[in-house]
Amino acid sequence: MREKPFTIEVVFTPLLFPVKVTNDPCIVVLADILRATTSICAAFDNGVERIIPVATTEEAKRMKEMGYLVASEQDGIKHDFADFGNSAFHFSNESIGGKTLVYCTTNGTRALKMSGHQGKTAIGAFINISVLSDWLIGQGMNVVVLCSGWKNMFCLEDSLFAGALVEKLFESGSFTTRCDSAYAALDLWHIARYDLIGYLEKAAHHDRLKKLKLDDVIPFSFTADTSASIPVFENGEIRNVAPGNQSESI
Amino acid sequence: MREKPFTIEVVFTPLLFPVKVTNDPCIVVLADILRATTSICAAFDNGVERIIPVATTEEAKRMKEMGYLVASEQDGIKHDFADFGNSAFHFSNESIGGKTLVYCTTNGTRALKMSGHQGKTAIGAFINISVLSDWLIGQGMNVVVLCSGWKNMFCLEDSLFAGALVEKLFESGSFTTRCDSAYAALDLWHIARYDLIGYLEKAAHHDRLKKLKLDDVIPFSFTADTSASIPVFENGEIRNVAPGNQSESI
Repeated sequence: MREKPFTIEVVFTPLLFPVKVTNDPCIVVLADILRATTSICAAFDNGVERIIPVATTEEAKRMKEMGYLVASEQDGIKHDFADFGNSAFHFSNESIGGKTLVYCTTNGTRALKMSGHQGKTAIGAFINISVLSDWLIGQGMNVVVLCSGWKNMFCLEDSLFAGALVEKLFESGSFTTRCDSAYAALDLWHIARYDLIGYLEKAAHHDRLKKLKLDDVIPFSFTADTSASIPVFENGEIRNVAPGNQSESI
Repeated sequence: MREKPFTIEVVFTPLLFPVKVTNDPCIVVLADILRATTSICAAFDNGVERIIPVATTEEAKRMKEMGYLVASEQDGIKHDFADFGNSAFHFSNESIGGKTLVYCTTNGTRALKMSGHQGKTAIGAFINISVLSDWLIGQGMNVVVLCSGWKNMFCLEDSLFAGALVEKLFESGSFTTRCDSAYAALDLWHIARYDLIGYLEKAAHHDRLKKLKLDDVIPFSFTADTSASIPVFENGEIRNVAPGNQSESI
């Protein structure tokens, strides 16, 4: 049997990215399930042409003044100056189809800038997990899953996504790992997979969202394969590289 | 029902200690199962009076020149200048009983210094888990389990210990958590508990120790409750605070 040529590594929070093992060229998959990466997939599903991620409200405000459409919120509440909040449910084809969207996400942007130095960063979510993993298998490179975590701490929802992606890449027969985090994420996924939301009822972050009465987006965020988008961050902007996608062919 | 008064939090690697949630006074439990914390318990079981942890070989060498007994190794091989390596199997009552031991552990000492600023740090291992958890329950304080990890990355063996300790403190009825890492550690423990070594066969660190032919200490390191010691780090040294222990009554 041929040795599996590619590795998958899981990094539980951006603070641990500098100590990851993989130093060869790799594709980083960023996961921020309860909000940014799910919302970014949803925006591409609704026809957005490209997304420019920014890290601060000030930057988002400046981009708004320059005429961009802007998604920006704090603690789940849309900023007055912004066109949208950050939820996947805030985007429609009428409002963002064919346009550029500035998306303000503190954790997400920090992680994108960190991972972007290495090459391509793909945007991962449960809603695009199958198209994403097919694409990853086709790329023929090592993969590092970078979980955004919650305030730089480990969080369950991003780790479960990481475990689900590890499983898909393992099933392809082309990936192996020597990373304890990947095994842990896979095992947690095996425990939680048949009742993700029930499992996550105990997660601190879910509690927090519930308090903000924003948990209408939670079932959507944990439903696999509603999205056909493969958003990839390169050179400061995110575009959809899914085969046949309009924005790629422009 | 009375609300549970104390919290337990799990920190998967020292790099994540600065972002932990618990800021109230707490007891930190340091876990470095495959080596330092298991060995330190074994040294107290063999009658050592106190242990001075140091972080570098140079410091260990200097302490040796000052006349101390020194345990120091690199990649599992005892340093020439040292009296012992770092394995739990290197200590006997004849060699260390009633004496001070300098123990060189890079990760362990870094973590001890980090956690020591907050107050007491207890040394946790599978071999002393029951006496330790009884003592923790009696202290009436919040608990933070700090896993040493492997080169600052997440590692399975320390995380499984954290999960086992979470379970014991939960069973006391006095502890609760809002920490995703604690839930993850507990679930991994539930998967692995009946075949810890089988489960850990896949861990990178175990592989590494095996290569060094040092895995004779592994079954010992994963056997619960062979130790009656409760080593506690305070003011630069570790002493055994187990009730009735000789060194405490001095």
